[in-house]
Amino acid sequence: MKRVDIIIIGFGTVGRGLATIIRKNGSLARDRFGVDIRIVGIADLRGSMMDSDGLDIDDALEWKCEISPVNSIELISKGEYDLMVETTPSDVTTGEPAFTHIKTALNLGKAVVTSNKGPIALYYRELMELSERTGSPFRFEASVGGAMPIINLIRDNLAGNQILGIKGIFNGTCNYILTRMAEEGLPYEYVLSEAQSLGIAEADPSYDVDGIDTAEKLTILANAVMGMDIAYHDVSVEGIRRITPDTLKLALDKGYVVKLIGEAVNGKIEVAPRLVPRDHPFALMRGTLNIAEITTDLSGPITVMGRGAGAIEAASAIFSDIISIYRSEQ
Amino acid sequence: MKRVDIIIIGFGTVGRGLATIIRKNGSLARDRFGVDIRIVGIADLRGSMMDSDGLDIDDALEWKCEISPVNSIELISKGEYDLMVETTPSDVTTGEPAFTHIKTALNLGKAVVTSNKGPIALYYRELMELSERTGSPFRFEASVGGAMPIINLIRDNLAGNQILGIKGIFNGTCNYILTRMAEEGLPYEYVLSEAQSLGIAEADPSYDVDGIDTAEKLTILANAVMGMDIAYHDVSVEGIRRITPDTLKLALDKGYVVKLIGEAVNGKIEVAPRLVPRDHPFALMRGTLNIAEITTDLSGPITVMGRGAGAIEAASAIFSDIISIYRSEQ
Repeated sequence: MKRVDIIIIGFGTVGRGLATIIRKNGSLARDRFGVDIRIVGIADLRGSMMDSDGLDIDDALEWKCEISPVNSIELISKGEYDLMVETTPSDVTTGEPAFTHIKTALNLGKAVVTSNKGPIALYYRELMELSERTGSPFRFEASVGGAMPIINLIRDNLAGNQILGIKGIFNGTCNYILTRMAEEGLPYEYVLSEAQSLGIAEADPSYDVDGIDTAEKLTILANAVMGMDIAYHDVSVEGIRRITPDTLKLALDKGYVVKLIGEAVNGKIEVAPRLVPRDHPFALMRGTLNIAEITTDLSGPITVMGRGAGAIEAASAIFSDIISIYRSEQ
Repeated sequence: MKRVDIIIIGFGTVGRGLATIIRKNGSLARDRFGVDIRIVGIADLRGSMMDSDGLDIDDALEWKCEISPVNSIELISKGEYDLMVETTPSDVTTGEPAFTHIKTALNLGKAVVTSNKGPIALYYRELMELSERTGSPFRFEASVGGAMPIINLIRDNLAGNQILGIKGIFNGTCNYILTRMAEEGLPYEYVLSEAQSLGIAEADPSYDVDGIDTAEKLTILANAVMGMDIAYHDVSVEGIRRITPDTLKLALDKGYVVKLIGEAVNGKIEVAPRLVPRDHPFALMRGTLNIAEITTDLSGPITVMGRGAGAIEAASAIFSDIISIYRSEQ
């Protein structure tokens, strides 16, 4: 049995989701893979909770453990853990504070698992080189597509293939808005405010509706599994603000739906609304479902779909990443 | 660089496909994963070709290397290799000769990769126990769904999940026949003989149309990734022989198509024709495409699709299995 002491930095929905999963499926990780995961530290803006024997998860979820003023970076720098999980909200233009957190942990030789897109979309090469130099495992399956398997799938299961292209729907907010507009003939502004009131879109929706989120995810995929070397500023991005109900109706009359599609192929990345035939799998995607079609040289096209958003879904990808680093059975 | 000497037992379309892939993408395996794969022996009913320095693949594909009367089991028993690839046609009721080949190699401590369903559907527990006892890796991604990733996907990428159910379309022949019957209103017997003349169905089509192939694949999945312990004789199987064009038309009028669906859930496995709503991803599957919906406790439903048949597709899964056993970079 391998004991793995983890700290969780950022204890919002994803961090809390991970704690819940460890409570629920921790015995599965022990019995099936010989990995005994204990949470020895949790930190966010409220301070931190620490216990080298493992925090009581029920108490931790309610912040009922003893709270210390030690902040995130101090907890990371103490180095009293095997693996750091980074789930803070990160700034799209700087990748901070996640970028500093991840560098600090990797420099200490600690393993890192994150759901954070920002630092990877901005500094993929730098972080991978640091991971290799220090021999510290670094995984980020949850950063693209939530529970939809894609990064490890391509790296492990499709290892013998050249990846020729990746194309898909990676943003549930845009998908919801476009679907509602098409089905009800409603204007963009109306559906957006409806989505905002339902919590599907943020108060400032630009990150989603302007295609930035999709561009970040594609940048990560291009760098991590297609051998490209780009920053997300290089991506050509067009969002969905200018789509009208008339456009959608015209498309539907011709047998098409409009989806915000991200595509990486031949060293080029584009995010834009595109016409999709109604009998194509992309046309069936609703709500928070993500879908990706991976074009390979040997295996032909491989398509995956799964829930692209949700705290438990992202946390489940983090949980599987932790197991895969330490599992004894191959 | 890790040199890996392999032997290929059974040099039909899949075995030859693998040799072609090693010729084409062997440098990718070396450069990206540090795995140098050489074919040191090939055997089928014609005899064998051997070279401890690695056979010339172009010559081997044309049986132009020196041919020895050493047969498959003799080549396997000599033990002058690291890994055996087993791609002989296997008997559905005995799993032979593949079963004996695999046991012999595992007993010698050799790694085994196979696309052969028979021995795994019949003797999964025995082979896994042998693999564990002798410390010999044993992989069989290609046995289910061709290039569609599923076994390693669940074991690795979804490691933290309980698998609650698997449901899908796993047989391209049935899929072709049902699609043609529905679209053209043609009777079963007519479309079957058409499929036979196109090489899509065998002269004796019972293995496909009676659902045996689907049942074997589900048995492998149930045992390998759902923790069940069943033989394929336990599966409830109904094929597609009794489907009429009238049934299909009636279904279509109500918004459904008929597909041969295999489902494993709650310890029970069933193969039967089922109604599928026209806007469900299963309804879009054509030709040799396979699709599987995996229900998990944490990640929700995950769907994968890919080419379920084809020599290069199956060989690509074998190639990725070989790399994953020996890769140095994780």
